[in-house]
Amino acid sequence: MSSQGFVLWFTGLSGSGKSTLASRVAEALRTKGVPVEILDGDEVRENLSKGLGFSREDRDTNVRRIGFVANLLAKHGVCVITAAISPYRAIRDEVRRQAKAPFIEVYADAPLAVVEARDTKGLYKQARARLIPNMTGIDDPYEAPLNPEIVAHTGAESVEVSTARILEHLQVAGLVRP
Amino acid sequence: MSSQGFVLWFTGLSGSGKSTLASRVAEALRTKGVPVEILDGDEVRENLSKGLGFSREDRDTNVRRIGFVANLLAKHGVCVITAAISPYRAIRDEVRRQAKAPFIEVYADAPLAVVEARDTKGLYKQARARLIPNMTGIDDPYEAPLNPEIVAHTGAESVEVSTARILEHLQVAGLVRP
Repeated sequence: MSSQGFVLWFTGLSGSGKSTLASRVAEALRTKGVPVEILDGDEVRENLSKGLGFSREDRDTNVRRIGFVANLLAKHGVCVITAAISPYRAIRDEVRRQAKAPFIEVYADAPLAVVEARDTKGLYKQARARLIPNMTGIDDPYEAPLNPEIVAHTGAESVEVSTARILEHLQVAGLVRP
Repeated sequence: MSSQGFVLWFTGLSGSGKSTLASRVAEALRTKGVPVEILDGDEVRENLSKGLGFSREDRDTNVRRIGFVANLLAKHGVCVITAAISPYRAIRDEVRRQAKAPFIEVYADAPLAVVEARDTKGLYKQARARLIPNMTGIDDPYEAPLNPEIVAHTGAESVEVSTARILEHLQVAGLVRP
């Protein structure tokens, strides 16, 4: 029996824990035998969007491409987990409208102060020093989802708690067996 | 039981019958219950490569993206059929090397004279009138595969015969049940 594909779409600031959560959820799903594919922001940029920058238009194009590929995979029963900042609400909603499988938006909600203090990739420091432009949260906007299916309080709760809450949501929604 | 994914990679001049053959093979495979996805040249350009032109570099980037997506799908048991001109041998071979599932190259081998006479999309006429540049076969090279798994003589044999030969190859290769 082929499984029910769906798209688990993470959105949130750089350093908000999207990729970490994505891998944990992926791990848990694979243990259950669910076919999983992670479309990580950086990897997708490298393979599908080289040459695109960080203007609103280019970011939107990148997000559309992730949505296109996610759709293709989900259609064939894959649980697709995307982990890109995807800062603009309108384009996330467009991707959701075009999804042909259940679309679950997960807002990795960590305050800027927290992710900037962590600064996992050292990007915030560079952005404050004006060494890199268009940093989301600093000189580029981040539009939080208005009605995400899940809010992961990644600034406050542990990765384990967020992972468990996401899995519970997927089970309650009937997308994953308990 | 999930099926064995593979990539059926068509290459050939514009108008050589790649898309037609791709749909026929896809139809036949779907009848057998095989999950199929067609990545058509034009559709992929629209969704993954908008902004790219027809220079060698841009064509290569486009082909790499098709290869990347084909790989993702094949990995999850999908039979992926690509139908893009993909005129350069080196990049086709690169995609083949990076394939993580069986990769079957089908050369839609129709002579230029034949496809130009058909001129399904009216492109050859425009290219001869110098209204469009970089037309493969006219002012851009087409490098035929040296060792394709299948040669479909689309200039001479019928779509039915080509389709049947491709399906037979897939069966003999153990990729599709008879």
